[in-house]
Amino acid sequence: QAASSVTMYGRADVAYSKTTGSSLMQSGGGETRLGIKGQEDLGNGLAATFQLEGRFDLDTGAKTANRSFFDRESTVGLKGSFGHVRLGRSISMMDRGIAFVNVGRRATDLQAYASATRHSNGLFYTYANGPYEFGADVTTKGSYNEGQSGSTDDGVIGQKPAFGAYGKYSANGLTVGLAYQADGKKAAKTIAKEFGAALSYKINPVTLGVSYAQGNDNVVGSKAKSRIWEASASIAATADDTINLIYRNDRRKNTVGAVTAAYKRQTAYGLGYIHTLSKRTSIYADVARTKDTVANTKATTWDLALRHNF
Amino acid sequence: QAASSVTMYGRADVAYSKTTGSSLMQSGGGETRLGIKGQEDLGNGLAATFQLEGRFDLDTGAKTANRSFFDRESTVGLKGSFGHVRLGRSISMMDRGIAFVNVGRRATDLQAYASATRHSNGLFYTYANGPYEFGADVTTKGSYNEGQSGSTDDGVIGQKPAFGAYGKYSANGLTVGLAYQADGKKAAKTIAKEFGAALSYKINPVTLGVSYAQGNDNVVGSKAKSRIWEASASIAATADDTINLIYRNDRRKNTVGAVTAAYKRQTAYGLGYIHTLSKRTSIYADVARTKDTVANTKATTWDLALRHNF
Amino acid sequence: QAASSVTMYGRADVAYSKTTGSSLMQSGGGETRLGIKGQEDLGNGLAATFQLEGRFDLDTGAKTANRSFFDRESTVGLKGSFGHVRLGRSISMMDRGIAFVNVGRRATDLQAYASATRHSNGLFYTYANGPYEFGADVTTKGSYNEGQSGSTDDGVIGQKPAFGAYGKYSANGLTVGLAYQADGKKAAKTIAKEFGAALSYKINPVTLGVSYAQGNDNVVGSKAKSRIWEASASIAATADDTINLIYRNDRRKNTVGAVTAAYKRQTAYGLGYIHTLSKRTSIYADVARTKDTVANTKATTWDLALRHNF
Repeated sequence: QAASSVTMYGRADVAYSKTTGSSLMQSGGGETRLGIKGQEDLGNGLAATFQLEGRFDLDTGAKTANRSFFDRESTVGLKGSFGHVRLGRSISMMDRGIAFVNVGRRATDLQAYASATRHSNGLFYTYANGPYEFGADVTTKGSYNEGQSGSTDDGVIGQKPAFGAYGKYSANGLTVGLAYQADGKKAAKTIAKEFGAALSYKINPVTLGVSYAQGNDNVVGSKAKSRIWEASASIAATADDTINLIYRNDRRKNTVGAVTAAYKRQTAYGLGYIHTLSKRTSIYADVARTKDTVANTKATTWDLALRHNF
Repeated sequence: QAASSVTMYGRADVAYSKTTGSSLMQSGGGETRLGIKGQEDLGNGLAATFQLEGRFDLDTGAKTANRSFFDRESTVGLKGSFGHVRLGRSISMMDRGIAFVNVGRRATDLQAYASATRHSNGLFYTYANGPYEFGADVTTKGSYNEGQSGSTDDGVIGQKPAFGAYGKYSANGLTVGLAYQADGKKAAKTIAKEFGAALSYKINPVTLGVSYAQGNDNVVGSKAKSRIWEASASIAATADDTINLIYRNDRRKNTVGAVTAAYKRQTAYGLGYIHTLSKRTSIYADVARTKDTVANTKATTWDLALRHNF
Repeated sequence: QAASSVTMYGRADVAYSKTTGSSLMQSGGGETRLGIKGQEDLGNGLAATFQLEGRFDLDTGAKTANRSFFDRESTVGLKGSFGHVRLGRSISMMDRGIAFVNVGRRATDLQAYASATRHSNGLFYTYANGPYEFGADVTTKGSYNEGQSGSTDDGVIGQKPAFGAYGKYSANGLTVGLAYQADGKKAAKTIAKEFGAALSYKINPVTLGVSYAQGNDNVVGSKAKSRIWEASASIAATADDTINLIYRNDRRKNTVGAVTAAYKRQTAYGLGYIHTLSKRTSIYADVARTKDTVANTKATTWDLALRHNF
């Protein structure tokens, strides 16, 4: 039964980091990963695939808290000329469609959208053909975040399925992406529905990126809107040195009903530097400045980290 | 130290399923497995073995709840002409002796007996010679289910060891099995002692099976008896298509003392279809109808699933 | 990304054991391990390393309780002519410097010192050159035991970093070690600061060892001191049979303030026997006698175990 096609892979990554008002910490931050994947040729261009990948905190060796064991990917699927169909837990559509403009790591990893990064209990479809890429997913009712802490909505009456779709075009240094995503939970949700667009363009040695995402919440008695702008520049200073600049503007405001605590008017600036020791190993440093005019907070976070992919 | 003989293996399996009164769910159901095993030749026909295998829910990537990490198998052992001795947690004797008649998956996986499928803290012995197979196990006191949720009986005074034995004969399409098992826990047990017999016969393209298991409980102030009949037919319709039919009659009644909530008079019918895409990959569908005249419940469950062994 | 240099390794070990006043148990005891490690050559004698290793209880297949998943080692590092720098969770300095005199397993595994065996959130440095070996570590504030049960001190104001250093010399059968270690936690600590020295000498077929460790606590309102003497003899009776003798004297007394429950005056004697079936597989037996004149307890523990390294 055991097949030679099973591959174990992963990442070991740990940082020293400091945020305004806190002491210096060594941070695992869920950046360490362990995965197992494989593919079986079924003939006629058809293949069976599976992938299991979870995140860990390298500073303590702990499984990252409030995450299912294989929270990053847990799928079995079939792949062919028709595309790739996967069942289980995988990356959701906003992330597939527009996250490519977010070039930062750790402190400068400023998420370009507000909806969930993964969906559980999903059917995932992706298709790529030359410069075109397309995907869509749908989950069973109330289940998009099942397996995470505090999620008890799976199959509950009145809950909704999560779903999404994205399209992407890449050619001659230009990448354009569009995405739509609805997270199916009814109560205590942050972003219920969100769409976004992103564009990046590579003029050697610089890659410029910009994205916009807009989300809507419809909690009982209140309606709210979020808007996230992100711009980035990734500069390949030498063959081994990259400098990343990222700006994000994240505004969430209520249009009907009371302002909830989660709502914010935040601007963030990030500067990152990556020095590669090999294709798999790098040392990197980040500094990010975040300012929130609703919470009236300002914070600067920096980190210095070592990353090894295996 | 690291040896090339270490093999990682497993199964990725997820289903869409629906039971009467519930909404459609994507179900991991503990059908996904990850295992590590190895064997070392010690000379003179002797070998050291180890195996670690746990179950996961593919729909969310979670470790299956209330299960120890390597709950399916966790043993180290020695193997030779005398047979195979293993220590740790492994499959108990009713499962080894009579479960072969249960050919179903998921909804149609109607367990042919009522005692525990695994024993923890056990000494396991198996011996095979030509058509004959024999095995026995014994655990330390009160420990058969240690490592599972709510089990705190390990080594507690007054607890009993679990034990069992089975024999099997297979030749010319005929398989006959006999088994006895006692689960050692004193309180809150379901089945304390159980014996069973099973027979299957292959007349191409059909394999017919029948089993009977009878268990006894002796909780303070009450005595109870359970009887499980199972019959199955597995039809190899084509080289890639199998149809399974399963019937189970599960009766548990008190002979002394009050009827407890767990007791039932249940009949279940299952119909399963498996289409193999390769030796390791299959698509399958099941429908099962369960009727309980004590609880006065009827339910139909169906599932549609994808399974890949690696 | 996936590299062939990733190695999975580990140990499967389970014992029958009995302590005075308890019934016979099958004990996993955290002796089972599973690890993943790798190394990447970066050129110029530089290499990237990672290692993830956790402990399990083989008797039930459970992850050992109150331990982070990869609690034995969780590091990423760089290695070169300058030595080896690792970040994350690893073995602390008393263990590296003086634990080599403790030759016992399970019941006879009488720890030669009292401070923590691992530090989380640490920077670890080791250097070896011919007969000399040297190492040092430092953690961020209050974090030495982060990831273990009940540890919430990481980054808390007023907490202290943990640190340590050791040196070792090995030549012509003689090994000498010196170590110092401070565990950084402020409250509820057992040993805050400890130093130790150890020596072993091999006169075939006997290896003799002796160590001394002295620790200090400074909890608010009380001061205490601990002193641990250990002596051992390891006798290679045949190529496959080893007999170990271990004596430990562990005294902890308050110098200021009230005597706390943890404090003791303990003597322990151990006798162990190891029969190797191969380099990787062994059967072993231990008996240890512990006497505490503060708690006024005496106990004898014995075990019989099977160990397989893979």
